[in-house]
Amino acid sequence: MLIVMQHWATDYDIERVKKTITEMGLKPVAIPGAERTAIGVIGNQGWVEDSPLRTIKGILEIIHVTKPYKLVSRDFHPSDSVVRLGGEVKAGGKSPFLIIAGPCAIESRQQIFKTARFLKKLGVPVLRGGAYKPRTSPHSFQGLREEGVALLAEVRKEVGISVVTEVMSPEHVAMVAEKVDMLQIGARNMQNFDLLKEVGRTRRPVILKRGLSATLEEWLASAEYILFEGNPNVVLCERGIRTFETATRNTADLSVVPLVKAASHLPVIFDPSHATGNRSLVSPLALASVVVGAHGVMVEVHPDPEHALSDGPQSLQFKDFERLQRQLKAMAQFIKMPSKGL
Amino acid sequence: MLIVMQHWATDYDIERVKKTITEMGLKPVAIPGAERTAIGVIGNQGWVEDSPLRTIKGILEIIHVTKPYKLVSRDFHPSDSVVRLGGEVKAGGKSPFLIIAGPCAIESRQQIFKTARFLKKLGVPVLRGGAYKPRTSPHSFQGLREEGVALLAEVRKEVGISVVTEVMSPEHVAMVAEKVDMLQIGARNMQNFDLLKEVGRTRRPVILKRGLSATLEEWLASAEYILFEGNPNVVLCERGIRTFETATRNTADLSVVPLVKAASHLPVIFDPSHATGNRSLVSPLALASVVVGAHGVMVEVHPDPEHALSDGPQSLQFKDFERLQRQLKAMAQFIKMPSKGL
Amino acid sequence: MLIVMQHWATDYDIERVKKTITEMGLKPVAIPGAERTAIGVIGNQGWVEDSPLRTIKGILEIIHVTKPYKLVSRDFHPSDSVVRLGGEVKAGGKSPFLIIAGPCAIESRQQIFKTARFLKKLGVPVLRGGAYKPRTSPHSFQGLREEGVALLAEVRKEVGISVVTEVMSPEHVAMVAEKVDMLQIGARNMQNFDLLKEVGRTRRPVILKRGLSATLEEWLASAEYILFEGNPNVVLCERGIRTFETATRNTADLSVVPLVKAASHLPVIFDPSHATGNRSLVSPLALASVVVGAHGVMVEVHPDPEHALSDGPQSLQFKDFERLQRQLKAMAQFIKMPSKGL
Amino acid sequence: MLIVMQHWATDYDIERVKKTITEMGLKPVAIPGAERTAIGVIGNQGWVEDSPLRTIKGILEIIHVTKPYKLVSRDFHPSDSVVRLGGEVKAGGKSPFLIIAGPCAIESRQQIFKTARFLKKLGVPVLRGGAYKPRTSPHSFQGLREEGVALLAEVRKEVGISVVTEVMSPEHVAMVAEKVDMLQIGARNMQNFDLLKEVGRTRRPVILKRGLSATLEEWLASAEYILFEGNPNVVLCERGIRTFETATRNTADLSVVPLVKAASHLPVIFDPSHATGNRSLVSPLALASVVVGAHGVMVEVHPDPEHALSDGPQSLQFKDFERLQRQLKAMAQFIKMPSKGL
Repeated sequence: MLIVMQHWATDYDIERVKKTITEMGLKPVAIPGAERTAIGVIGNQGWVEDSPLRTIKGILEIIHVTKPYKLVSRDFHPSDSVVRLGGEVKAGGKSPFLIIAGPCAIESRQQIFKTARFLKKLGVPVLRGGAYKPRTSPHSFQGLREEGVALLAEVRKEVGISVVTEVMSPEHVAMVAEKVDMLQIGARNMQNFDLLKEVGRTRRPVILKRGLSATLEEWLASAEYILFEGNPNVVLCERGIRTFETATRNTADLSVVPLVKAASHLPVIFDPSHATGNRSLVSPLALASVVVGAHGVMVEVHPDPEHALSDGPQSLQFKDFERLQRQLKAMAQFIKMPSKGL
Repeated sequence: MLIVMQHWATDYDIERVKKTITEMGLKPVAIPGAERTAIGVIGNQGWVEDSPLRTIKGILEIIHVTKPYKLVSRDFHPSDSVVRLGGEVKAGGKSPFLIIAGPCAIESRQQIFKTARFLKKLGVPVLRGGAYKPRTSPHSFQGLREEGVALLAEVRKEVGISVVTEVMSPEHVAMVAEKVDMLQIGARNMQNFDLLKEVGRTRRPVILKRGLSATLEEWLASAEYILFEGNPNVVLCERGIRTFETATRNTADLSVVPLVKAASHLPVIFDPSHATGNRSLVSPLALASVVVGAHGVMVEVHPDPEHALSDGPQSLQFKDFERLQRQLKAMAQFIKMPSKGL
Repeated sequence: MLIVMQHWATDYDIERVKKTITEMGLKPVAIPGAERTAIGVIGNQGWVEDSPLRTIKGILEIIHVTKPYKLVSRDFHPSDSVVRLGGEVKAGGKSPFLIIAGPCAIESRQQIFKTARFLKKLGVPVLRGGAYKPRTSPHSFQGLREEGVALLAEVRKEVGISVVTEVMSPEHVAMVAEKVDMLQIGARNMQNFDLLKEVGRTRRPVILKRGLSATLEEWLASAEYILFEGNPNVVLCERGIRTFETATRNTADLSVVPLVKAASHLPVIFDPSHATGNRSLVSPLALASVVVGAHGVMVEVHPDPEHALSDGPQSLQFKDFERLQRQLKAMAQFIKMPSKGL
Repeated sequence: MLIVMQHWATDYDIERVKKTITEMGLKPVAIPGAERTAIGVIGNQGWVEDSPLRTIKGILEIIHVTKPYKLVSRDFHPSDSVVRLGGEVKAGGKSPFLIIAGPCAIESRQQIFKTARFLKKLGVPVLRGGAYKPRTSPHSFQGLREEGVALLAEVRKEVGISVVTEVMSPEHVAMVAEKVDMLQIGARNMQNFDLLKEVGRTRRPVILKRGLSATLEEWLASAEYILFEGNPNVVLCERGIRTFETATRNTADLSVVPLVKAASHLPVIFDPSHATGNRSLVSPLALASVVVGAHGVMVEVHPDPEHALSDGPQSLQFKDFERLQRQLKAMAQFIKMPSKGL
């Protein structure tokens, strides 16, 4: 439930609303706006009988939200959220199109430093690299784990690039959050609710990937877990969904990008590498995501994809990545010029 | 099976190959190329024992094709096919980005003439309009049928615009093919094999939509039916696939566009209206399809979407279509300028 | 819309309702019942303004049906329909569990006669055999077509067994309907509406298979096409749906059987061969379908599955089929004895 | 890789094989059998060059396993595993058909005691009850958490019934494992690999539910994580998969039960409540699962489903559960009597 106050409502009116909500056994969250204040109500299940509120002065409208999420919705926060990664790096709103790139997994000091220096030179602001790897089989490479996180922290300092890495277990969150700029929740953990709560207790920016068969509504409800714990710095990431089609690893759902932007104020980026599983499709789909309005992309790039320990077939080589970066820049620039026809 | 001849192979060598194939109970199809001839073998099921061929002079290579299609594949026809719709209108290869637009269903003389004149004025080369409507329920509007086809023929003549309409039954094919420029096979009929054969017996260009849950391979195999009957003028059309996601009518699979182009020489277009079912998503997805390499789009536009007898919620209004057309032109132009960064 | 009359309503009242419906531009269908008459209204799109009816005497209730089907629903026809195949053979209601068996495709006189005699000896009432084969690729065996239908007609006469075969094109329906006891609409043609209408114009019993990605509602709406044309003899057949799982050809959806029975009065059978694509799963799933309430099964059996021209891997050998038949009988008997624990 | 030894191989031969595997950087696992020993090799990624082994005496065969799982496969452990829950309660092999029942969530002392006593009286051996609840939205009831676990431990002691509850976070595993007889990994956590590893470090029996869109292979690979950490007591549970069909909450995949049994030695049970989401479908599907060979079922039952805090629509009332239990017993007995026709 959302209580929208009149623009002339006094602090006293607002306090009265909040007190009444508390007396109803629920929790009020004030959302101050430029023109008027709204008060969100959380903690209820289903419909709330609103008669105790209806007689309070200064209320413009009582909106009953029936979605499983509130804090992430546009109703609660009409303007775009911008997530800051430290320094100048930002995602969302009118920030520059964000490119995050790097190998699927951190494999060695040499591999991650080489990639980081390459990206730094190109001006790519964020390096991705998996330390904890969610692999289907326990017999596959599980990542360098703590050692990988330490390497990433070293790279970050020495090369001067922001870093993002996946966390898979609540117990690692605090340690990893201290060493990197941004945490990632992978598709397989989109509904690992204790993990969502744990990253919600930090203030580190979080990339939340869409689950393999998650609906838009479920995805936003998972983001709600993070915001509800107090961390507003969530960036959503579409990475393809599971369908009957076997020609691609997943089916990229680009329609979801404008739908996310209509339903939520959070930034949304696109991962063309996992969405396709096929190097030759990464560039065209990445460019298409600019067109549908994504705030950025996360792309797998590897100094030697043929010998990558995971996801080699979908990783770009350095020279292909360079070309893609140029194309993304050109496209982002083109898209922002409505006077030139768009 | 595909037999690729040496560039120095004589007509006699080629005839000997063809004769041997016939003696093996199969059917040879010569595919003359600029440099050398290839001979396709059709009619076999599964693996063909090729020893009778191996001793013939002038054979460079015998390629065993394991796909369920041959004539539609790039192996058989390495260069892009261009499908001509009459006059200057073409689809595929380096032809201009093709825009096909019009209402889901022909509802009245006034509606279809108004739309046709609007499109003609904008320079849109092809008008779509359903006469036979495949509706889930027999209690929904079934289309004006023969009357609709007659109206389309009238529009074509009076307004001077190419027209495309769906056929649903083999018995209507010959009649409709005489009156329109292009036939359409809808998603629900992608594996209506008798219908495919019937349109294959005409020489009219055919739009073949992808089935609701068809894999890329099945879709191309359906196109193979049309080519196998002798009609090479097939344009493939991606229109979204069925998934668990309910926020859109279907899930647009844009990855399939570059995959089609890699596997086949046929043109491929995109239908953002059915792929999303949501007017607000039509323009961003249409523009994205240009980026992934589609040869054109087919878009639903209606003079009065709110009162359309079918698919109103996904139909564009005239003014929105005009804007989209400008955007598509700008994007197509931009994409073709690799010197400017792409 | 459904108008339920009072039990004391007179013929005059009923006529008045029908006349009013006609004047509203719609079509009334009287559904006489044991206790009272109901009048169905068809031909409307969406909601019907019912005020012209509300003042007529003798109306108990006006029910607005929002489903895309009416004639197939339990509301229109509360008791189970029983479809008669000729002679003693029946499907639905309290008829004995129906077994339909035979090869995927009719391959030769010897093959179909051998199978028919084997089934006749076992007391299996219906032989299936494909003459027109819907194959993904034109390069696969397309069936013996007219020759196959003729063979089936011969078998029917000589062996004395009922026969069912698939029709794929409206133009074949009348000819095939004359020669066989039952027609089949395959999964790929579930929304081939002109074909549905054509079989609706015969009075031959029809097996309507569920489409590869059809919802329950769409499937029933397709059946509605057949009933709407005047043929009430429809038997629905679940044959598995398409999902991401690749370990089976399709995913058998056994839940749909009780759902069909709750929503519709039509008989529903199960095809474990296509639903699994795997011989070892045919018997367990066939037995499970008895338990969920299916009225019968359609099973592929072949004298020599290893050399079948289609669907060999899912066809049972004669000895396995014999064992399955015994098991089905035992299970059907067990299920019907609630006094013994169920 | 699996090295199968000759029946006459000596301990010395076996040791030599194990030593060589260790020298290859891999880990040998001896699997003693009645007739001969096999040695499993784990820790490799992809193909292992086996030439160092080929010259060792006493090796019958070297089998290269290409599946992502080994310890859970029938190749490694040909006979059925039986998982013991404490006391007489067992799952798998020829153990009696196992019934696990209880509410979705523990809501109050009264609710869980009432249900436990009801089940105890009926002879149901295992009570389920969720303490940690994975809910799509943070605004839904999240379970009584620690308090719920304590209630379950009390019930277990006072009523004398085995108990199973879900764990969602690695940090809770040790505490919960001490208080209950069996742990559950929910569908949303099937690929929460750190959680899998943690339950793998206990010796408590674990129910591993299939993920919402998990293939059979992925599901078995998740079980492999638990066995690989040393806990062999895994019971797999099919609970429906996500498809386009909206008439049921999920689509029950009963074919997967015999497929699991062919591929793995682990017990497999079925959850008809989540697989359908619809009370009226629970009993027919539960009975069908007996027929396809499930080792048991897990069913939601609630003293007052209409007021349940979660999953009310799919929970059985006490009287319906009693009837289902009788039916399951009768069916299990019937199925095991092949002399009577099956």
